[in-house]
Amino acid sequence: MERTLASDALKKSGETVKVSGWVHRVRDLGGVVFVILRDRSGMIQLVTDNSFNLPVESVISAEGKISSSEKAPGGAELEVENIEVLAKAEPDLPVPVNQDPSSLSLEAILDNRMISLRNPKILSIFRLQATCVKAFGNFFRSEGFTEIKSSKIIGGGSEGGTNLFSMDYFGKKAYLAQSPQLYKQTMVASGLERVFEIGHAYRAEKHETPRHINEYVSLDIEMGFIESEAPLMEIERKFMAYLFETVRKENAKELADWNADVPDPEKCDDIPIIPHSEAKNIVKQITGNRALEINPEAERVLCGWAEKEYGIPMIFINEFPRRKRPFYTYPLGQKTMSFDLLFRGLEITTGGRRINEYPMMLEALTKFGMKEEELGSYMDIFKYGCPPHGGFAIGLERITQKILGLANIKEATLFPRDRKRVSP
Amino acid sequence: MERTLASDALKKSGETVKVSGWVHRVRDLGGVVFVILRDRSGMIQLVTDNSFNLPVESVISAEGKISSSEKAPGGAELEVENIEVLAKAEPDLPVPVNQDPSSLSLEAILDNRMISLRNPKILSIFRLQATCVKAFGNFFRSEGFTEIKSSKIIGGGSEGGTNLFSMDYFGKKAYLAQSPQLYKQTMVASGLERVFEIGHAYRAEKHETPRHINEYVSLDIEMGFIESEAPLMEIERKFMAYLFETVRKENAKELADWNADVPDPEKCDDIPIIPHSEAKNIVKQITGNRALEINPEAERVLCGWAEKEYGIPMIFINEFPRRKRPFYTYPLGQKTMSFDLLFRGLEITTGGRRINEYPMMLEALTKFGMKEEELGSYMDIFKYGCPPHGGFAIGLERITQKILGLANIKEATLFPRDRKRVSP
Repeated sequence: MERTLASDALKKSGETVKVSGWVHRVRDLGGVVFVILRDRSGMIQLVTDNSFNLPVESVISAEGKISSSEKAPGGAELEVENIEVLAKAEPDLPVPVNQDPSSLSLEAILDNRMISLRNPKILSIFRLQATCVKAFGNFFRSEGFTEIKSSKIIGGGSEGGTNLFSMDYFGKKAYLAQSPQLYKQTMVASGLERVFEIGHAYRAEKHETPRHINEYVSLDIEMGFIESEAPLMEIERKFMAYLFETVRKENAKELADWNADVPDPEKCDDIPIIPHSEAKNIVKQITGNRALEINPEAERVLCGWAEKEYGIPMIFINEFPRRKRPFYTYPLGQKTMSFDLLFRGLEITTGGRRINEYPMMLEALTKFGMKEEELGSYMDIFKYGCPPHGGFAIGLERITQKILGLANIKEATLFPRDRKRVSP
Repeated sequence: MERTLASDALKKSGETVKVSGWVHRVRDLGGVVFVILRDRSGMIQLVTDNSFNLPVESVISAEGKISSSEKAPGGAELEVENIEVLAKAEPDLPVPVNQDPSSLSLEAILDNRMISLRNPKILSIFRLQATCVKAFGNFFRSEGFTEIKSSKIIGGGSEGGTNLFSMDYFGKKAYLAQSPQLYKQTMVASGLERVFEIGHAYRAEKHETPRHINEYVSLDIEMGFIESEAPLMEIERKFMAYLFETVRKENAKELADWNADVPDPEKCDDIPIIPHSEAKNIVKQITGNRALEINPEAERVLCGWAEKEYGIPMIFINEFPRRKRPFYTYPLGQKTMSFDLLFRGLEITTGGRRINEYPMMLEALTKFGMKEEELGSYMDIFKYGCPPHGGFAIGLERITQKILGLANIKEATLFPRDRKRVSP
């Protein structure tokens, strides 16, 4: 018999069907046993007798007649005629799957990742994350962007950066790329003009914070023929509205699981753009403290301010000082044509216009104490005609974390990597 | 003035517009100079006077009136009134951009990757590749699959594999994953049931062949509740038909550039499924030589045979002997529920059903001389209820190579990594 998904069972009321899935919960009421079966579509209640003695998480198929039942999750109940055991589970689950995970420590959740991911509330994080990835690709494709896949193994430090992981590459030293920066610029200059990449990025930083992981998924774009950071903020504004709309449409259940919501998509037009120096003043006015940096506390203050003043907990900060940005950022006097986007108290995007003229790039290298040779053939992009361009990157785990209101970014990472954790 | 793309210019015949792009070619006929300008949409001819003296690849904007011209590429011509130089190129291009690249060596193309990618014929490879990535995501999402992003840094060898790149992870040794195998199985067992991943995979193999690279993009799927490899081959058959259809629709120009075509999508229903032992017999009958392995020559012979017998140069080989497959492959006596898909003489997919029962997995480990402890929490998937499942992986660069008929897989890789090449 062909399998019916739990979510389709109610439509087949009166029919005999086969359902398959995991034993989520068992309630033994003496003569009658209720089994909640979980599959990818949802839950269905099975009614059977007390010969049922499988541990939770066992995988079974059950055949029987469907009837509607108001008390059953999903509204459908199956009167068991036959059960086939596909895989019997051991009885000693390391973490519970059928209870709210909020009583579990992050440590317990991550140490037992293979099983904790089965918890429907935890799994829902990654259903929503999949929507974010899809929405990113769909949106930027609709804006004329071409998807690229660039190498993550690099011969040298691309952004003049420290904090690179090193590896053994056939007896030589190589590194894991901290961003696809050079490559996306190359592909703008190649003539694709508008490119995006969804890929891993690596930072060998010794951070131990709720907002840092050492391997993350970077949603990167880069576009040509722009003269400032303004069109970048415009297109990100449009993307955020599209993302929020899509998540509301496709992830109502996941949002409900976490008692979360996205901002009103229409309000994305109102996200304020505040220059860096002014942002520091706003923080000072609110907290009374002079902010030297836009630190995590300042990020929270600024998002609170934006929510109060503009009705959305998001804010673009632009015109960062030159010394705070990488050498390739397009200068604007002592400032730069650059920006961050903060969302619910967290920086989720860094971007800006890049230097595209060869002579200006040579000057920038001198200013930052770098040598042309260090950059290898990266400089060829500029030597041989590169249009004005810029781009940005969104952290996939950060945006997932902030949409659902998760306390730690590791909760929004399938298999997070930190200083101490390199498995599972 | 707002920019007009080259491909939209003809529609604006009679209007004054601005176009922007790269100087692709300059023809000086004495008093009149014809400039072919290249942008992401195509080419347009500019007509100007002999004061024009920019090297090719310089980036400019040009304003002027559009008229139709049969001789101009794209059919539109712009009578230049004003030119703005956005970035002047140096005159000594390391490789030509406006000539057919077939006279260039692969070495020259890759050594000068930043510039060779500008060659429209070379760039077209990656436009088509982007379609493959998009089609993969769209197809499997429509079949109920959820996209995942798993870690590429792992604590130990996941598939009992050698050939892993090692790296320094905060003073400890870690490795780059050779596939998302464990993780996609985890996510099937998590309850997602059907997952796909588009991500990098790493093989520290010392191969020096036209079909191997050390870093590649793996298009992975894994699905639950299947009892053999048959449903996997069925869904791949459907995907290949969808991919070929999509490429024909969206990449006619790129196919024409390479004088290539995809197989007839409807013929994907006819791809034969031949057991491994029979495949070897076919090779023997055709070549007269006994084939010990399905080696590259045998792969070419088998695809030729399939084209002759079934009208499509593709063939599924299934029932591989157990000793030729990883320990987790579901056994079928001395054979396995596994398969490869060959396309135009090259293996582009390996897949199969996996062991899902804990006791069978313990037996398999013993048979392969492995210990449960080596696999860490991977074993938890099976211990606590894992449905019957299987999956496969398609090599993105291989499928690109074979669609376009490229001699070497490195041509189908933006920034290929081989034993000697780790930049750009």
